[in-house]
Amino acid sequence: MATLCRPAVSVPEYVITMEETLELARSRHAGHPQLGLSLRLIENTGVRTRHLVQPVEETLAHPGFEERNRLYEAEAKARVPLLVRQALEDAGLRAADIDLIIYVSCTGFMMPSLTAWLINSMGFPSTTRQLPIAQLGCAAGGAAINRAHDFCTAYPEANVLIVACEFCSLCYQPTDISVGSLLSNGLFGDGAAAAVVRGTGGAGIHLERNGSHLVPGTEDWIAYDVRATGFHFLLDKRVPGTMEPLAPALCALADGHGWDASDLDFYIVHAGGPRILDDLSKFLGVPPDAFRFSRATLTEYGNVASVVVLDALRRLFDEGGAADRARGLLAGFGPGITAEMTLGRWSRTP
Amino acid sequence: MATLCRPAVSVPEYVITMEETLELARSRHAGHPQLGLSLRLIENTGVRTRHLVQPVEETLAHPGFEERNRLYEAEAKARVPLLVRQALEDAGLRAADIDLIIYVSCTGFMMPSLTAWLINSMGFPSTTRQLPIAQLGCAAGGAAINRAHDFCTAYPEANVLIVACEFCSLCYQPTDISVGSLLSNGLFGDGAAAAVVRGTGGAGIHLERNGSHLVPGTEDWIAYDVRATGFHFLLDKRVPGTMEPLAPALCALADGHGWDASDLDFYIVHAGGPRILDDLSKFLGVPPDAFRFSRATLTEYGNVASVVVLDALRRLFDEGGAADRARGLLAGFGPGITAEMTLGRWSRTP
Repeated sequence: MATLCRPAVSVPEYVITMEETLELARSRHAGHPQLGLSLRLIENTGVRTRHLVQPVEETLAHPGFEERNRLYEAEAKARVPLLVRQALEDAGLRAADIDLIIYVSCTGFMMPSLTAWLINSMGFPSTTRQLPIAQLGCAAGGAAINRAHDFCTAYPEANVLIVACEFCSLCYQPTDISVGSLLSNGLFGDGAAAAVVRGTGGAGIHLERNGSHLVPGTEDWIAYDVRATGFHFLLDKRVPGTMEPLAPALCALADGHGWDASDLDFYIVHAGGPRILDDLSKFLGVPPDAFRFSRATLTEYGNVASVVVLDALRRLFDEGGAADRARGLLAGFGPGITAEMTLGRWSRTP
Repeated sequence: MATLCRPAVSVPEYVITMEETLELARSRHAGHPQLGLSLRLIENTGVRTRHLVQPVEETLAHPGFEERNRLYEAEAKARVPLLVRQALEDAGLRAADIDLIIYVSCTGFMMPSLTAWLINSMGFPSTTRQLPIAQLGCAAGGAAINRAHDFCTAYPEANVLIVACEFCSLCYQPTDISVGSLLSNGLFGDGAAAAVVRGTGGAGIHLERNGSHLVPGTEDWIAYDVRATGFHFLLDKRVPGTMEPLAPALCALADGHGWDASDLDFYIVHAGGPRILDDLSKFLGVPPDAFRFSRATLTEYGNVASVVVLDALRRLFDEGGAADRARGLLAGFGPGITAEMTLGRWSRTP
C-alpha cells in the first residue's frame, strides 16, 4: 500500500512580520479608498510571519518577468536539493529508488521544469518519469499526493518523489491594488517541501482513497492574468466561502470509503486563509483544534500555496504522529475551484 | 487492459506553404549572415504546409504576451470541444464516463488550465480529476498517453480523456534571429487533438508498458527563455542528433518487454524534424516507410509539438489500423531531452 512519508520543509531566511506588512500597506497605499478594509482583512488572516527569498525592499521592486524567473530558478536550485535529500533519507530510500518525480509550482515557470535538472544533478535514474504541474495552484500539493498514490497503485513496487516549491513573493505585482491584491500581498509566503510516497514499506500515511471535486462555475474565482509583467493573481471575494460547497465533497469521499468526514482522527488541509479553516470546522462539525497543523502553517509561514499541505503534515509528524491506524483526511484547495482530497490511515511501522 | 482509442485531430484554417515560408525568411532576413544555411535547413524539413490560427501577417506581429495568451485561450475554447466530442464518440463513451482529463500544451499558459472550463462547459462530472501539463513540450503527447495508461492500470474501470492543444505560431518571436529560431519559424505548426484511453473496452492500442528516458546533460538543448514577450524557444543544433542516445532507450524498453524494437509492426513517433525520423530508421534498423505516419504529419502540418504523436496515430487508424495483436511503439520526444515511450498491441475489437 502506498505510504506518504515524512515531508521535509524549508522556508527562506528573510522574515516579514504582520506589523511590517500592515505598515507597508499603510505607507504604500495611503490614499487607497479601501485601505481600512484591506488592513482589517490582512489582520484577520492571523499570519504573524512570512518568509521571503529576498529582503522585502527587493521584493517590492519588480525587476521584470524575465529576471523574476531567473531568480525563481536560482532559488529553487539552491533550496530544493537539501529537501530532496532529507525526504529520501526520511523515507529510507536513495535517489536510485525513485521512479517518478512530481514537481508542483505555480510561482515560476521553466521548460524543461526542475525535474530534468534534479535528475541530472542528484543522481536519479535517467528512466525516472517526470510530472511537472504548474497550473493547479494551491491544490497542487494535494494533486501531487494523489497522482503519486495512483502511480503506486498501478506499480506497487514504485516510489514517487514529490517536490513543491513556491516563491509567492516573486508574483508580487506593485500595480495591482484591488482589495483582493492587497489582501494577497499580506497572505502569501515562500517555502518549499519534498516528500516521498513509497509503494511498499515506509511509515506515515497509508493512502487509501483519493478524489477531486470542481465547484461548478468558479473558474475565474482564483486565476492568473498572464501579462508581460508575469502572473497577476486574481482572488475573488467569494473564495473564502468555498468550504460550504466543498465540505459535502469531502463528506461524499469519506462516505464512499465507509468513513464519516466529521469523525476522523486527523485533518491536514490547505490553509488558504482563516475562514477556510473556520468554515471547515463548522461544516464538518469538528473542533477547530483539529486544524491546528494547518493553522500553525498559516500563522508562521502564511499561505505557501502547494507547500501548505506538506508543511501541515510535517507538523503532525513533529507532534509524534497519530495512533496506529488512525484515520485522516488530507485536502488541497485551489483554482478551479478544485479540491484534491485524500483519505488515509496513520501507520507507525513499515 | 487500457486501450488508446482513435484520436480526433484538427488543424486551423490558415495555411502557409514551404514556398511562402522561404519567401518570408528571405524578405525579413535579407541581410542575415546565415540566411542561406537557414533556408536550406527549412527546405530540409520537408514541411510542405503548416496551419495557423490566424493569417500569417497577424502571426508575424507580436501583440504582447497578454494578448497572445488571450488569443490562445479563445482559440483553444473554439477548437477543442469539437475534438473532445469526436474522441468520446469514437471511444463509445459520454462525458459522464471520464475520470481524468489530461491537458497538455506548452504554447499558452492559463491558470486554471482549460480542464476546469472543459468540465464546466461540456458536462464532465465535477469529480473528474484534472492533470494539466505545460512543461514537457513535444514529449507531452507521449507523457499524456503514459500517465493515462498508469491511471487505468491503477483503476481498471476508469477512462481518461487526453487533450493536446498547441498553437506554436503564438510563440513566434520576431526578435529571435538565430539559425535555430529561423529554422523553428519554418518548422512548427498549429493543431489540436483529443483521444480517450479506456481502462476496459475500446478498440485501438492496448497499452502494455511505458517508460521514460532523459538524456543526461541536455537540459538546455530544448528550452524556453521566459521573458516579458513570452516564451522564447531555444533549439540547440545538437537536437537533431538525439536519436543516437535515445534509440538504445527505446530498445531497452522493448527488451524489457520481450520485444525487439527493430522488429515491430508499427511505429508512431514524434516527428520533431526529418533527421529524427531518418536516424530512428537507421539506429533501429527499420525501413523509413515504418515512420510514414509521422512523416505525413511533418509534411502536412509541420511539428505540432505534443499533438504530433496523436495525429500520427490518427493516420494509422485512417489507414485501417494494423493486424489484430500487431505490436507497436509510440514515442514522444521533447525538452529534457526526454523520451516518453509506450509499447502496445493493436486491438480491433473491444
